[in-house]
Amino acid sequence: MFAEIITIGDEILIGQIIDTNSAFIAQELNKIGVSVYQITSVQDERLHIKEALREAEARADVIIMTGGLGPTKDDITKHTLCEYFNDTLVESKEVLTHVEGIFKKHLGVPLLQVNKNQALVLSKAEVLHNEFGTAPGMWVKREGKVFISLPGVPFEMKNLIGKTVIPRIINEFKRPYIVHKTIITYGIGESALADKLSSIEDNLPAAVKLAYLPSLGSVRLRLTGKGSSSEEVNALVNAEAVKIRKALGDLIYGDEGDEPVEVVIAKLLTKKGYTLGTAESCTGGRIAQQITKIPGASAYFKGSVVSYATQTKIDVLNVSPETIDRFSVVSAEVAVEMATNLKNLLKTDFAIATTGNAGPTKGDSDAEVGTVFIAVVSPNATVVERFLMGSQRERIVQKAVNKAFEMLQKEILKF
Amino acid sequence: MFAEIITIGDEILIGQIIDTNSAFIAQELNKIGVSVYQITSVQDERLHIKEALREAEARADVIIMTGGLGPTKDDITKHTLCEYFNDTLVESKEVLTHVEGIFKKHLGVPLLQVNKNQALVLSKAEVLHNEFGTAPGMWVKREGKVFISLPGVPFEMKNLIGKTVIPRIINEFKRPYIVHKTIITYGIGESALADKLSSIEDNLPAAVKLAYLPSLGSVRLRLTGKGSSSEEVNALVNAEAVKIRKALGDLIYGDEGDEPVEVVIAKLLTKKGYTLGTAESCTGGRIAQQITKIPGASAYFKGSVVSYATQTKIDVLNVSPETIDRFSVVSAEVAVEMATNLKNLLKTDFAIATTGNAGPTKGDSDAEVGTVFIAVVSPNATVVERFLMGSQRERIVQKAVNKAFEMLQKEILKF
Repeated sequence: MFAEIITIGDEILIGQIIDTNSAFIAQELNKIGVSVYQITSVQDERLHIKEALREAEARADVIIMTGGLGPTKDDITKHTLCEYFNDTLVESKEVLTHVEGIFKKHLGVPLLQVNKNQALVLSKAEVLHNEFGTAPGMWVKREGKVFISLPGVPFEMKNLIGKTVIPRIINEFKRPYIVHKTIITYGIGESALADKLSSIEDNLPAAVKLAYLPSLGSVRLRLTGKGSSSEEVNALVNAEAVKIRKALGDLIYGDEGDEPVEVVIAKLLTKKGYTLGTAESCTGGRIAQQITKIPGASAYFKGSVVSYATQTKIDVLNVSPETIDRFSVVSAEVAVEMATNLKNLLKTDFAIATTGNAGPTKGDSDAEVGTVFIAVVSPNATVVERFLMGSQRERIVQKAVNKAFEMLQKEILKF
Repeated sequence: MFAEIITIGDEILIGQIIDTNSAFIAQELNKIGVSVYQITSVQDERLHIKEALREAEARADVIIMTGGLGPTKDDITKHTLCEYFNDTLVESKEVLTHVEGIFKKHLGVPLLQVNKNQALVLSKAEVLHNEFGTAPGMWVKREGKVFISLPGVPFEMKNLIGKTVIPRIINEFKRPYIVHKTIITYGIGESALADKLSSIEDNLPAAVKLAYLPSLGSVRLRLTGKGSSSEEVNALVNAEAVKIRKALGDLIYGDEGDEPVEVVIAKLLTKKGYTLGTAESCTGGRIAQQITKIPGASAYFKGSVVSYATQTKIDVLNVSPETIDRFSVVSAEVAVEMATNLKNLLKTDFAIATTGNAGPTKGDSDAEVGTVFIAVVSPNATVVERFLMGSQRERIVQKAVNKAFEMLQKEILKF
């Protein structure tokens, strides 16, 4: 059973927005055993949308479209669907009441004709209630295939996918069972890993695939199994995971899974009742931001001092000017003082500090662009490491954040 | 003249990664007058890749592929291209030397056969040198159409696009002239805007399109013009921009352009020699992170105190416990104290503070989820506002960040 995703909107084709909807929809479909065959982004243009629909219909059982449902003239998805299905638009009383409610409650502005038009739906469609917006979803069934049109606004689309679309697909289609298992490795390249795993890979059962997903400083190995029962697929995938774990040993890092490291850390800290703070220079608040993305972070995260300027390191973190003079602001000694002082200032159990030069120019130190020192202080230890993280600002910062989480996780696991 | 982009990789179709490459490539192509007709994401599967290539070849003059060039067995793009072009792989001495150099300089591990295979290229292809990685780009010309295969690793791909692909396309193809102009509006919905602009929209010249791009709290209006000369297209687009500005007046916000607000602020602060600091609670470091993303931020950004815990507001920012007791930690009074004290602590000209409840639970205050107070302190004024930002954590935080930048920009513009 296959699905296809069609995202509609000129803004995607000119690169003004990144299409994040597709990845979300693909994830949700995969969880319920529906493989996505293709993702296609097309313009707000009738012939083009219809061509994409024809091609997708030939290949897939479920076609999910997002976008082009807004109230303005560049939004043409509904009219195009009418042409495609030889249908007409009719007013949905239920949607009109909902649109009127939204305007009354949240906007306090009069309802225009274009807003009322949001209640026009295909006569052959079942309306999917869009709790958070004025553009309803639509579900059209034709010759055993399902076409689903959703708004492009990510949070409206997500809500519709989770609450309505996925449960209905589960209900209407028989699906194979799919398992993905991800194993995270650090400190070894993609080809060296492949070399170590070559005999396992050559002997993989036909129902299992192995993929390598390199990212900054780590490679994720993804096993995917497909079959008719949960027991069968899990057994197949687990058997391969055991072989990989045995072949790689220490190269496997922490827990396996698709969870980001900050979620793993959040669980460890919460479980053990420890608190955390960060003192960030070159990472500029990104560590704090990744931590606070997680709901419930306030249980263990006390805060961060983003001491971007050297003077802020002195004024807020009480780093000694002598240490800075003697070792430079990008040094192991300053990283350790930052972490230690932050830990005392915020009264936390663990602290992370970063100081480095992300470029493009050298700043307040002579350290080469890409040099980063990271210190982690735990209740009974201090570790500090120096890294050379290349020459590209964005990558230096993200690598430093990843490395900081990796070092922190190692220290927390000792408790 | 049209281009198409094909991104190759199972990880895209299962939603494990978001395809950010396409947006980047589309942007760069649009800048030089090449319209992207379609973006297609396909699996690591030979028949599927070939089908996508056939379809794209029928529609476009330039086909850019990314992904599937790694050294592992799931990477099959090169072999598939051989089938598609009825070609064979040959070893490129130049690429082999480069791969050996990378291993020697950066990795210090022995070169495996799979790494040497990175030097195999299509005999009909011109090799595009990949400065930052082992997978070379390839440029194949057939019957006036060009097929370009690039690595999927974003920073390698970006470097190849910028330094090699775009200059070559400029050289080989005659292109129309394209102009995009974006006007940013705040505080008015998409449909109300469309209503105000309806007569302008009805009378747009055929060569100009208008699109509405709503995002949190703002709508961007994008005018796109296409024609044979720079003068002609600019004149057409500017004439419409003047009409829109006249029709919307105050609803247009600050400068127009595609620049994010933090870049606009960076330019204002740098020009005027002012400095900035932030005191963040519910935004958790995201304001600091967005500011420090911009190269050169150290010239005006001194730092941030992410006072996530109430105690951190007291310990680091010296917010008075009496103020917190009397008004609660989510209050205008606390926001103002945070901003004022941060400004004094870091000795900056401007300071932003946020305190609010991003949910999912209520935390250290009785404020409803979604309540956010934002204070901005300038050299001679203090402003504070209360917002209700809905019920979804991620959106509350991003809205608060956008609002904070908006308020800050207003204050800076007074100087």
